[in-house]
Amino acid sequence: MSAYDALEARFRRLGLLGGAAGILHWDWATMMPPGGAEPRAAQLAELALIRHELLTDARVPDLLDEAEAQAETLDDWQRANLGRMRRRWRQAAALPADLVQALSEASSHCEMVWREARPASDFAAFAQAFAPLLGLVREKASALGESLGCAPYDGLVDSNEPGLRCATIDPLFDDLADFLPEFLGRVQEAQAGADAPLVVSGTVEAQQALAKRLMTALGFDFDHGRLDVSLHPFCGGSAGDIRITTRYDEADVLSGLMGALHETGHALYEAGLPEAWRYQPVGQAGGMALHESQSLLIEMQACRSRPFMRFLAPLLAEHLDGGAASADAEALYRQAIRVEPGYIRVDSDEVTYPAHIMLRYRLERALIADDLACDEIPGAWAEIHQDLLGLRPRNDAEGCLQDIHWSVGELGYFPSYTIGTLMAAQFFDATARAEPELWPAIERGDFSPLFGWLRANVHGLASRYEGPALLERATGAPLGTTVFKAHLQRRYLD
Amino acid sequence: MSAYDALEARFRRLGLLGGAAGILHWDWATMMPPGGAEPRAAQLAELALIRHELLTDARVPDLLDEAEAQAETLDDWQRANLGRMRRRWRQAAALPADLVQALSEASSHCEMVWREARPASDFAAFAQAFAPLLGLVREKASALGESLGCAPYDGLVDSNEPGLRCATIDPLFDDLADFLPEFLGRVQEAQAGADAPLVVSGTVEAQQALAKRLMTALGFDFDHGRLDVSLHPFCGGSAGDIRITTRYDEADVLSGLMGALHETGHALYEAGLPEAWRYQPVGQAGGMALHESQSLLIEMQACRSRPFMRFLAPLLAEHLDGGAASADAEALYRQAIRVEPGYIRVDSDEVTYPAHIMLRYRLERALIADDLACDEIPGAWAEIHQDLLGLRPRNDAEGCLQDIHWSVGELGYFPSYTIGTLMAAQFFDATARAEPELWPAIERGDFSPLFGWLRANVHGLASRYEGPALLERATGAPLGTTVFKAHLQRRYLD
Repeated sequence: MSAYDALEARFRRLGLLGGAAGILHWDWATMMPPGGAEPRAAQLAELALIRHELLTDARVPDLLDEAEAQAETLDDWQRANLGRMRRRWRQAAALPADLVQALSEASSHCEMVWREARPASDFAAFAQAFAPLLGLVREKASALGESLGCAPYDGLVDSNEPGLRCATIDPLFDDLADFLPEFLGRVQEAQAGADAPLVVSGTVEAQQALAKRLMTALGFDFDHGRLDVSLHPFCGGSAGDIRITTRYDEADVLSGLMGALHETGHALYEAGLPEAWRYQPVGQAGGMALHESQSLLIEMQACRSRPFMRFLAPLLAEHLDGGAASADAEALYRQAIRVEPGYIRVDSDEVTYPAHIMLRYRLERALIADDLACDEIPGAWAEIHQDLLGLRPRNDAEGCLQDIHWSVGELGYFPSYTIGTLMAAQFFDATARAEPELWPAIERGDFSPLFGWLRANVHGLASRYEGPALLERATGAPLGTTVFKAHLQRRYLD
Repeated sequence: MSAYDALEARFRRLGLLGGAAGILHWDWATMMPPGGAEPRAAQLAELALIRHELLTDARVPDLLDEAEAQAETLDDWQRANLGRMRRRWRQAAALPADLVQALSEASSHCEMVWREARPASDFAAFAQAFAPLLGLVREKASALGESLGCAPYDGLVDSNEPGLRCATIDPLFDDLADFLPEFLGRVQEAQAGADAPLVVSGTVEAQQALAKRLMTALGFDFDHGRLDVSLHPFCGGSAGDIRITTRYDEADVLSGLMGALHETGHALYEAGLPEAWRYQPVGQAGGMALHESQSLLIEMQACRSRPFMRFLAPLLAEHLDGGAASADAEALYRQAIRVEPGYIRVDSDEVTYPAHIMLRYRLERALIADDLACDEIPGAWAEIHQDLLGLRPRNDAEGCLQDIHWSVGELGYFPSYTIGTLMAAQFFDATARAEPELWPAIERGDFSPLFGWLRANVHGLASRYEGPALLERATGAPLGTTVFKAHLQRRYLD
């Protein structure tokens, strides 16, 4: 067996164990009784340790060296795969096994604490579990930064979106920070004078049936996945068995539907990855910014649109009681694009969303640099929130306790949302240029032009290229803010 | 770290991975979309392989030797644990890694085929997947038999119930085969002259609520477990997160309830294992016969009784529509103990159940000995079924395709049911002798005397002793048929 083949065999094992962990995580969030958390945390930590051991086995660096020396015998995908393997190994080798296990256990524990601390708005209880986890995340950041020759926080960012650095993020965020406040003012002014939006209510059962109807229209295959409910919507599971969740608000149907559509964007990215490379690093989804670009493309670009609301309106009327009133596509559209600064990131609109991300980005950089202590988070959060959004959270539940990310040790992830927002606009713009029938098709509920383009230019390429390179290849332009700003202008002011 | 401590650390890892596999199996049977079967099979095979590698690592036999040489430094539980470790290692070391992986994959595949072949009564389709699996099971049986110095089929039996052999089973089964046919005739005669039994109908939702109410009365903790629906009821999950399933028949409430109560017996055994030994071999449930004894003790001994029906009748009236009619405890009891030869093992009564087991026992011994070919199963099944139960299955769905066991490679398991039946009668008899308040308490829905005794004498001892030794220690008598036959006499003829 060649060195490359031996590596493929090993990475297949890693891929399978990753899929097993994915299902166990899904169960944790959707099905597990509360008392199952402790054994589950230990199981997941054990799986993380096993994967770390398989990846950092002493034979792996030799196999990598040998396969790289024979790279001319490999085809392009195999060579890209080998590059991704090297990257995975470098990341894993940077972290000692006991740190991997400790991080997994501390994350599971902190998430359990967060689940109770959030509704109780009890930051002190959360901090008890988060402070030690933060210490471990700092260790991880230092180790990753050292191995990559970058700052610790950059090491975390890179582990979420390969190649992304603060040096790329900062000018983009600065540009948005310049543009958005004044733009927001103009949007609010315009919307104040418009007709009232339509807020539709409906039972959870009816919403769920409609969500499944929409997911099917988009191409979600329920033979290879599920839709369930969780506190924090997510897309998880394993290759070939993709599990998404949403949450329903009986008073506002659009909220749960848009959550389901957002996660469907993630799911269809996963489903569109090349099956032949299913368990190999090159066959995995690209970084998290690229992943978010696919969910935001579906939710924000495609579905919060007038054509989609024209497709949706009669379906709402069909699925919900007292339906006829809900068939006003224009009024629904006004609701879908309503802009209003608020406290909760996941409920916020695309104009104010970047401010929520900048807030978290500033805080987590400071936390990792040790410029901010755990107990200073609530105060710093309130101050920056006031500064960026003109509002001061009334408690920590609608402030720093609202997100799951930090509770599971995911720092360095948040920038992916806004980088993904920019990418989404650029991908969608390129699709619209390539597919003139895109909007009429969406209005008929036909998403095949959209996914045809995405499959050829994004999904089917998996990790063949790094995110920014893939974006430029697919759209002809580098990552930037121009297309996103033009989209905002068109949607909210034209 | 001492050799013993190193072994404990390794077995803790094995225990955690076993728990992870348990949850993945549960998901397979209850939640997984059909397309998830292929990746899940590969994940489970990978977990089986990882566990096999951890267990057969070259250091393990040296550690076992060293720990055994220092056995005088260990306490009784540790010494018993060491013995169970040696046993686990011996079993694992007997099987080559590629056989373990092939068995896991072939079982998952065959179960998928069985799920479709059973409703279609398509033995030919099933045989396509079962024939290669049977070949692997034969290999496994030979390897286990060789390592234990016994016949191949005994090797499989031993892997389900440590120490059990055909030489023990045969005289017990022969004795029952002598006793039951004539006894059955007398019961049928007696029941023909009795008042009609009461068959209660109810919605699935009402049945589920009632099942949960009964499970709670028995002591099932829903903070550490769940009740769901599956094609084939089972008890699974992991330590601290015990998942049971049942299936409901809207026309016959007792059927689904008794299924849930049976699995609750398994679940409460798991829940009663000593937490301090949770991930160690000595802390696991004893063999499968012992496990079945605990479910049958609850279902057959405790719940299919007049006192339990007096507890149940008012609850049925409360939970079901048109309830008053269902509150006739005597008529319910007649339904609970109705005896009638039939085709389906899981629907059969305790008088005819052993015949279903003897049928499978004869066939699987012949299959493992290579005296019966895969395609001869339907004919042989029909013939023995006719001989033992006086009925000939009209198709394979109600014949050899009815059970899941063979489809997942579990041969050598079936005898556990009838050995468990005998044990259940003996354990219950000992409880009734030790706890004079047992029956009045059950009639009030108070199961604490029953579980108090079981926890002290069975559950809390886990694998401290082997099954037959534990039975004798707890009841003062060896395994036999006398107590079971006396129970049948009392319940059906006195």
